Amino acid sequence: MNELSVDIERIKSDILELAKIGYHEQDRGIYRMAFTDEDMEGKRWLLHRIEETGLTAASDGAANISGILEGKSDSPRIFVGSHIDTVPCAGMLDGTLGVVVGLECLRALRAANADLQRTIELIAFSDEEGRFGGTFGSEAFTGLLNLEKVRSAADLNGIPLQNAMQEHGLDPMKSLEARRVPEEIDSYLELHIEQGPILDENHQQVGIVESITGLQSWSLRFDGVTNHAGTTPMDYRKDAFMGLADFAHEVPRILEENGGENSRATIGNAEILPGAPNSVPGAVEFSLDFRDPSPEVLEELSNAFQKALSAISRRRSLKFEFHVQGEIRPVASDERLTGILTDEADRLGLRYRTMLSGAAHDAQLVGRIAPMAMIFVPSRGGLSHSPEEWTPWEDIEAGANLMLAALYKLAC
Amino acid sequence: MNELSVDIERIKSDILELAKIGYHEQDRGIYRMAFTDEDMEGKRWLLHRIEETGLTAASDGAANISGILEGKSDSPRIFVGSHIDTVPCAGMLDGTLGVVVGLECLRALRAANADLQRTIELIAFSDEEGRFGGTFGSEAFTGLLNLEKVRSAADLNGIPLQNAMQEHGLDPMKSLEARRVPEEIDSYLELHIEQGPILDENHQQVGIVESITGLQSWSLRFDGVTNHAGTTPMDYRKDAFMGLADFAHEVPRILEENGGENSRATIGNAEILPGAPNSVPGAVEFSLDFRDPSPEVLEELSNAFQKALSAISRRRSLKFEFHVQGEIRPVASDERLTGILTDEADRLGLRYRTMLSGAAHDAQLVGRIAPMAMIFVPSRGGLSHSPEEWTPWEDIEAGANLMLAALYKLAC
Repeated sequence: MNELSVDIERIKSDILELAKIGYHEQDRGIYRMAFTDEDMEGKRWLLHRIEETGLTAASDGAANISGILEGKSDSPRIFVGSHIDTVPCAGMLDGTLGVVVGLECLRALRAANADLQRTIELIAFSDEEGRFGGTFGSEAFTGLLNLEKVRSAADLNGIPLQNAMQEHGLDPMKSLEARRVPEEIDSYLELHIEQGPILDENHQQVGIVESITGLQSWSLRFDGVTNHAGTTPMDYRKDAFMGLADFAHEVPRILEENGGENSRATIGNAEILPGAPNSVPGAVEFSLDFRDPSPEVLEELSNAFQKALSAISRRRSLKFEFHVQGEIRPVASDERLTGILTDEADRLGLRYRTMLSGAAHDAQLVGRIAPMAMIFVPSRGGLSHSPEEWTPWEDIEAGANLMLAALYKLAC
Repeated sequence: MNELSVDIERIKSDILELAKIGYHEQDRGIYRMAFTDEDMEGKRWLLHRIEETGLTAASDGAANISGILEGKSDSPRIFVGSHIDTVPCAGMLDGTLGVVVGLECLRALRAANADLQRTIELIAFSDEEGRFGGTFGSEAFTGLLNLEKVRSAADLNGIPLQNAMQEHGLDPMKSLEARRVPEEIDSYLELHIEQGPILDENHQQVGIVESITGLQSWSLRFDGVTNHAGTTPMDYRKDAFMGLADFAHEVPRILEENGGENSRATIGNAEILPGAPNSVPGAVEFSLDFRDPSPEVLEELSNAFQKALSAISRRRSLKFEFHVQGEIRPVASDERLTGILTDEADRLGLRYRTMLSGAAHDAQLVGRIAPMAMIFVPSRGGLSHSPEEWTPWEDIEAGANLMLAALYKLAC
């Protein structure tokens, strides 16, 4: 048969239609956070579009949305997808692009009457972005979700996941029934924007992800003594903020000594108590997010951070505490899948590189129970989670054609 | 005549009675912020106690409360006082102690039928603590208040000063009539807790303040670029928080190079934007409070801070801006007054030192138009603005007797 290819106009049209749902004129951002009215409207739009395309539409107990293109055998199926929920004030691509591209691939395969040996299932996972903690749909899908999490998850305003689901007629307990067994899954492919600057800076069209970085997310606190900023001599102070400033300066050293080229560490938030301009800070609460593709390196970084915290506390007469808020294991892509992707990228003459994903994705969860690989497309200026987020349509087309070629190879 | 002395039991009783007004059981703090119901109740209590004492009670357009003990001549009068408004969750001393001690001194002088040549006026200034900006009453008293400030002042909840005053039947415009001319004022004496650790650490009973430090209060901002904490290589980042960490580390160097032993600088508050654990900080807003008794040193510190901000911004590809939010000029005590205080402290056999005030006080305003001096008593552990604030009754008694001796010397 002739070379299959996607229709970029249909991708464009789907992206722009979905971008209207949850759009705020004021900041030009999209607000389609999990289990809001807008997210549910997005899910209904997707179900409708799946049906229009002539695929079998379905949704599971976690409100993951599926579109199924039946193959001839009942061999384990191929999954392709991502998510359509967004962070607040999002751009129009992020996970949505992976879902729309998956839909277009199935549309192209169906239109070409491709001779599918395996069923291909498009899937859009619920709450990847984390209104209720993140990767909820893919945790349900892989069986990593548990009753405790369903019962305790709540958003930043304290609204329980259970209430948010019930408001839309969904039974939260049913999310525990969304599990698929590994034997059903031949492979999972996900296309996503890079969310970093590497492809853009290097003028490459696609990235083939060899592994997804692991991460630890800590909440920390230094306690010192609140004092008057005018009457307390510098030598008498137990300034908790100065402890944080010291720690911030240890971060690059710790990465250089214990990390590799893919190590990252970020202090993304801090709150000073009492936070008055004329008070020496008595306490500071802050966050630390650190990532590496190697579990051993993550462990070494963790140890080095703890040593630094301890030394700073002694030096400045502070107390420190930290809690591990979140931990995601690194996951390697499947070599057969990355092999197919690099072969097809070569055949299609794409400018590509193999690379690491520094962000967490649904693929990281699915990868714990089945073979997984990801395709990245460039993020202009490395930006994401912002209305400024953008990828040139030519690169989207290149990435989508690579996805289509890989699905064809896997399914036919 | 016999040596006059204060009655510490009466001071104790007044302090404990006033401490009931605005007391919160929950956090054991006192809430008597300017022009609240509790502050007005405190003012009524004071007026009543002044009358009971046999003094002439008065109040001016800024709701400053006075108690007048008439002298024989109409020579410029001696003022003694402080303030009875509090910060939220205050202790029972702070400004209240200076007012109660002043009242006790007048009570003792009256009881002893002291032969006063000059009138002594006790004064409790309104809003020293800053619900509406601070030192409102002493600004009105010295003529440093202006219409613009009366009209624009508002508290942190946006309640205008004008409304707060009107609610209690006060005409805000009358505050501009509270001005006294320098020719009316022979001298102003204020006793206050030190609010710092020096007297406590050195086991001294009183401090004689030689000057009140000047201060500048800045609000600052670094702007970088918000990025994903996982996908953005360390070298690509324009992390605004790391700019602040750099600046925090320049502060001690700048004090060492450009300041003296009484220089202080404090970063008391910071807010990171967007403040998400998985975002590289795109911006950080923070405060800088720096103080020194010398205007020249303050100027040098200001220049050095600006140079550091500029260098850090260049190094990290950030932008910076800063605004001077507040500026209080340093004021020296009057040498005749500090001479009397040291002579009397020697005569009374007190353990005292001369020292600097690192905090701002009503005396700093009055000192701009008339001779001023202050007496400090120890703050246990250097604590103030807290229910933990404390001064041993013996030290209060020592400080009050020094005040009484100085008033006697000045007035008789």
